[in-house]
Amino acid sequence: MNWNRILSGVGGILAGLLVAFIFFADVGQEDTTASSSDNQSKAEKVYVPYGELDEYYMFASGGHSGQLFVYGIPSMREIRTVPIFTPDPATGYGYDKETKEMLGGYTWGDFHHPAISETEGDYDGEFLFANDVANNRIAAVDLSTFHTVDIMEMPNMGGPHAGTFVTQNTEYIVMPTRFARPLGGEYEELDNYEEEYKGVVSMVTFDRDAKEFDLAYQIVLPPWSYDLSDAGKKMSGDWIVMTTYNTEFATTNLEINASQNDRDYIVLVNWKKLEEEVENGNYNELNGEKLIDPRDVEGAIFAVPVAKSPHGVDVTPDGTRFIASGKLAPLMTVFSFEKAFEVIENGNFVDEKFGIPILPYEEVMEKEVDPPGALGPLHTQFDDKGNAYNTMFISSEIVKWNIETGEVIDRIPTYYSPGHSAAAEGDTVNPDGKWIVALNKLSKDNFLSVGPSHPESADLIDISGEKMEHIMAVPTDPEPHYAQIIHRDKINTIEIYEKDESKENAVWNQEDTRIVRDGDEVHVYGVAMRSKFIFDAEAERPDAVMVKEGDRVFFHITNIDLDEDITHGFGILEYDLNFEIQPGQTSTLEFVADKAGTFPIYCTNFCSALHQEMSGYLLVEPAE
Amino acid sequence: MNWNRILSGVGGILAGLLVAFIFFADVGQEDTTASSSDNQSKAEKVYVPYGELDEYYMFASGGHSGQLFVYGIPSMREIRTVPIFTPDPATGYGYDKETKEMLGGYTWGDFHHPAISETEGDYDGEFLFANDVANNRIAAVDLSTFHTVDIMEMPNMGGPHAGTFVTQNTEYIVMPTRFARPLGGEYEELDNYEEEYKGVVSMVTFDRDAKEFDLAYQIVLPPWSYDLSDAGKKMSGDWIVMTTYNTEFATTNLEINASQNDRDYIVLVNWKKLEEEVENGNYNELNGEKLIDPRDVEGAIFAVPVAKSPHGVDVTPDGTRFIASGKLAPLMTVFSFEKAFEVIENGNFVDEKFGIPILPYEEVMEKEVDPPGALGPLHTQFDDKGNAYNTMFISSEIVKWNIETGEVIDRIPTYYSPGHSAAAEGDTVNPDGKWIVALNKLSKDNFLSVGPSHPESADLIDISGEKMEHIMAVPTDPEPHYAQIIHRDKINTIEIYEKDESKENAVWNQEDTRIVRDGDEVHVYGVAMRSKFIFDAEAERPDAVMVKEGDRVFFHITNIDLDEDITHGFGILEYDLNFEIQPGQTSTLEFVADKAGTFPIYCTNFCSALHQEMSGYLLVEPAE
Repeated sequence: MNWNRILSGVGGILAGLLVAFIFFADVGQEDTTASSSDNQSKAEKVYVPYGELDEYYMFASGGHSGQLFVYGIPSMREIRTVPIFTPDPATGYGYDKETKEMLGGYTWGDFHHPAISETEGDYDGEFLFANDVANNRIAAVDLSTFHTVDIMEMPNMGGPHAGTFVTQNTEYIVMPTRFARPLGGEYEELDNYEEEYKGVVSMVTFDRDAKEFDLAYQIVLPPWSYDLSDAGKKMSGDWIVMTTYNTEFATTNLEINASQNDRDYIVLVNWKKLEEEVENGNYNELNGEKLIDPRDVEGAIFAVPVAKSPHGVDVTPDGTRFIASGKLAPLMTVFSFEKAFEVIENGNFVDEKFGIPILPYEEVMEKEVDPPGALGPLHTQFDDKGNAYNTMFISSEIVKWNIETGEVIDRIPTYYSPGHSAAAEGDTVNPDGKWIVALNKLSKDNFLSVGPSHPESADLIDISGEKMEHIMAVPTDPEPHYAQIIHRDKINTIEIYEKDESKENAVWNQEDTRIVRDGDEVHVYGVAMRSKFIFDAEAERPDAVMVKEGDRVFFHITNIDLDEDITHGFGILEYDLNFEIQPGQTSTLEFVADKAGTFPIYCTNFCSALHQEMSGYLLVEPAE
Repeated sequence: MNWNRILSGVGGILAGLLVAFIFFADVGQEDTTASSSDNQSKAEKVYVPYGELDEYYMFASGGHSGQLFVYGIPSMREIRTVPIFTPDPATGYGYDKETKEMLGGYTWGDFHHPAISETEGDYDGEFLFANDVANNRIAAVDLSTFHTVDIMEMPNMGGPHAGTFVTQNTEYIVMPTRFARPLGGEYEELDNYEEEYKGVVSMVTFDRDAKEFDLAYQIVLPPWSYDLSDAGKKMSGDWIVMTTYNTEFATTNLEINASQNDRDYIVLVNWKKLEEEVENGNYNELNGEKLIDPRDVEGAIFAVPVAKSPHGVDVTPDGTRFIASGKLAPLMTVFSFEKAFEVIENGNFVDEKFGIPILPYEEVMEKEVDPPGALGPLHTQFDDKGNAYNTMFISSEIVKWNIETGEVIDRIPTYYSPGHSAAAEGDTVNPDGKWIVALNKLSKDNFLSVGPSHPESADLIDISGEKMEHIMAVPTDPEPHYAQIIHRDKINTIEIYEKDESKENAVWNQEDTRIVRDGDEVHVYGVAMRSKFIFDAEAERPDAVMVKEGDRVFFHITNIDLDEDITHGFGILEYDLNFEIQPGQTSTLEFVADKAGTFPIYCTNFCSALHQEMSGYLLVEPAE
């Protein structure tokens, strides 16, 4: 490997941008002269006529929106925003008691990497996991309802950027830390960074029946930043791999100071060995959590040098290799698990750093792929024919190359500056080889202008042939970082919440509705139905509720319309409250009636021709 | 008019649904057998190749999401969600000091009807106004930046559903109340509804230079519910028209009780006359606001009967007629302003109700348009050839008919249950006659399933020919109620915020960055730039901030990257804070550092190849 070829720091970036600019100029010219028959054929590829459905779901992280964006492929129509980390009045998420408690007082999250649950290295379509870089959380979305069902905050972490990734049977959801931080987030001067700050990896389990997370154990390491990670597959199934940056331990101006070393590292961790250790009680406890230092466990951790400041690391579908991409290096490096295991077997380490055995680069590296002028490789996706696809952030393109031979097969521009890309089932053991979507950071003048800040963009590219074909660009809200594309046959949604007579607070018959006062608590057991609310069927006005200023009010509302999509909303004027009850659901709204007055209540989600009439009043009598 | 033909209550709705079901079944069959060359032609109509732009913007209200959805037409790609009434971490809206104060503590709104500012009855593309039914607010979006620039909460109202609509030179933005309520929102028993509850219309002005609202005056009326409204044009420019329901004064179970009367009313108000009265000081004051009873002003208010429970009322492009649609009646009624003015001139009233002169239906009505089997007409849009387009909620279709002759020209199914529709410039004096978009409430199995609650849908229909042509359906997030479609040439966005040396708290040079302590307030005057934060250039660590637990911290950050779309985010771990600074902007984040510890700060909006390195630390030293 020619280390000199690696671009260094800002100068390199600027050079890259210059190259990219020239490259774009060419591309733009080429594309705008595309023949109308080309456009006709592209148009047909993305057009899904009435009566037909998209073939794939794309689940894209919504970045600092905190939400999940669901698209249909190939139409690229956004079907749904699923709220995960941010309250969403459109669906009442974060307003009813259950989801409000789940959010724990946070009003946003920073969701980077979705991971669909896997069985034998293939998406099984049951759950989707999400990380929150900003608040050290993990969430699960039930893909039978598209509802977030659990959120867990993890201690000792500093922004789990390099997650979520699942091991091949979803034994663990892996969450490595981006920002080093003292354990527990304690106050500690930056002068003590090297000793007191830590890089922590959380190994989380998920109980599919109870729909609950548990933090199995945490791996404690020196204060590196983990950027991205992946889990091994098949022969490498016991392993996880992670890219690191800031192995310089810089504590300021990382743009310069964390780009000093020619090499950072890929860290390899054997989670099976750590699991055994934890099971054997060999861990430290901190605030009830199990912490383990993998350096204390024989054969549990190794590192291999890689071109500076790498971003993505991705395991090939057959599990035999891992590919690292260096955002400040112009090449992709293919490493062999088999070779790594040989070196480990032989104890043939070149060095030890921070107590971690270092594998010799030349012996583990299988090939370097270095397409001329391709700059800023970030991530790798795969097809069903042994090819890899790399996004190039700086030169704005996707490069297709053969994993066995390293031969570059095709290159195609994206508009512009792609981060990740997502291929159809492209990070499973069985990629489909049909579509890849580039998730671009900049859209320039691709779309109608919406002011100084433009949308992100996503390019749909057909990868079914030898040559890639750019089909269409669509704008996206901020900010998809990664996405996964799953075949529609794997998603099985329910139509309604089944009527459950035993459900707490549920009322299934109008005559059972009632308002119960208990001290200064008022419990309303009501129903929502087309096209009225009934809070107390026997009252003179069944849709009015009278309380006193200062009362704590609970609206327990059951939607007794057991029809698909007949969702009712429930908003109260000026009380800043709005929740939603889907067909068959019972939800509770809890609040203190701290303002006296006359407040209309109304259905906020269109439900019927007389939706407009679905209203009532909350009357709050002034306190003495 | 044959009042017997009017459907009554739930029975009628059910009958309608049955008819609709049969109708759908037919339609579905017809459409799924559409030839592939049809689909090819449709696909080409919506495909906007790389290098080209959509011709129109569509601004759709986001309903109880509180936000504005911006689409490109004909591609139907959603370009941007513009936050208006709900905090949005994706853009930092509601987190920085300025927008947080603008939201006034509310976390949602219910935005139904956008109105683009008008000059001589035509969209001028400068501002867009939005109503919040839930919290009695009005907002303005500056269409040069796509930022919300002012929000005003209006007293005495109960859900301004029937707004926003603008008079033809944006003299006023009109906001009529949906829920009757005592003035000031005071507590008042429902038994006193008829005397003490009021229907209020707010007349709001907007200063385009100061970008600020003012409440000019409020019109106080009996406790009717106003459903929708429109402003007159040209010959009718001094008038506003509003539909009413619940003229029964029902206080419970409105589904039944507000559907008793065969006729409700269209109310006609002469705002010019009221303006004069207010200018002459003839109003009542309540809590500093000017209230006027139009019944005290000669010639200021009239009403005309209309088929029960009407929804939309729309003025024709030439201003000569207004068309009412009855959600429980199967017909559209065309009224003539000229005839109404004649009756008024002659004082030829049939009745007086609630002190309002009632115009004789037969003399003001010009025609009734009653397409067989078309049920649940809600709204009317217009083309450039003298035709009207009505959405039919129950029979799920759009009906095209000629305004002069009343002849029904074409009918086309929508998928399914459309509320409003929006035509290109379709409610101005100069409709374009190119596209209409049906905003549907239900999508059934049009799209990949996302669980028990489905997306809404929007149908793009080509209206450039004699026959309408259904082109495509797209899913939408909840819940567009109305939209406006404006030609792209009318929107002029800025590229960056111009560098303003005099701007409060701005810092334009790195060497001017500083951290200033004032008692327990800490003011950070910093910059964001690719790819770092500088809070104090002279400090050992320019990107670290040390404060004490309990300090009030102000981050005043200027984005000194004066490049289009180079937006920086600013998130702090576990502090639930994230704001955004667009190129050239200065924004302030204010919070109390109430948790001791070590908190990474990072750029949350992808900005450059070294974005990942753009981070720092907030160190909060524990209080003694």
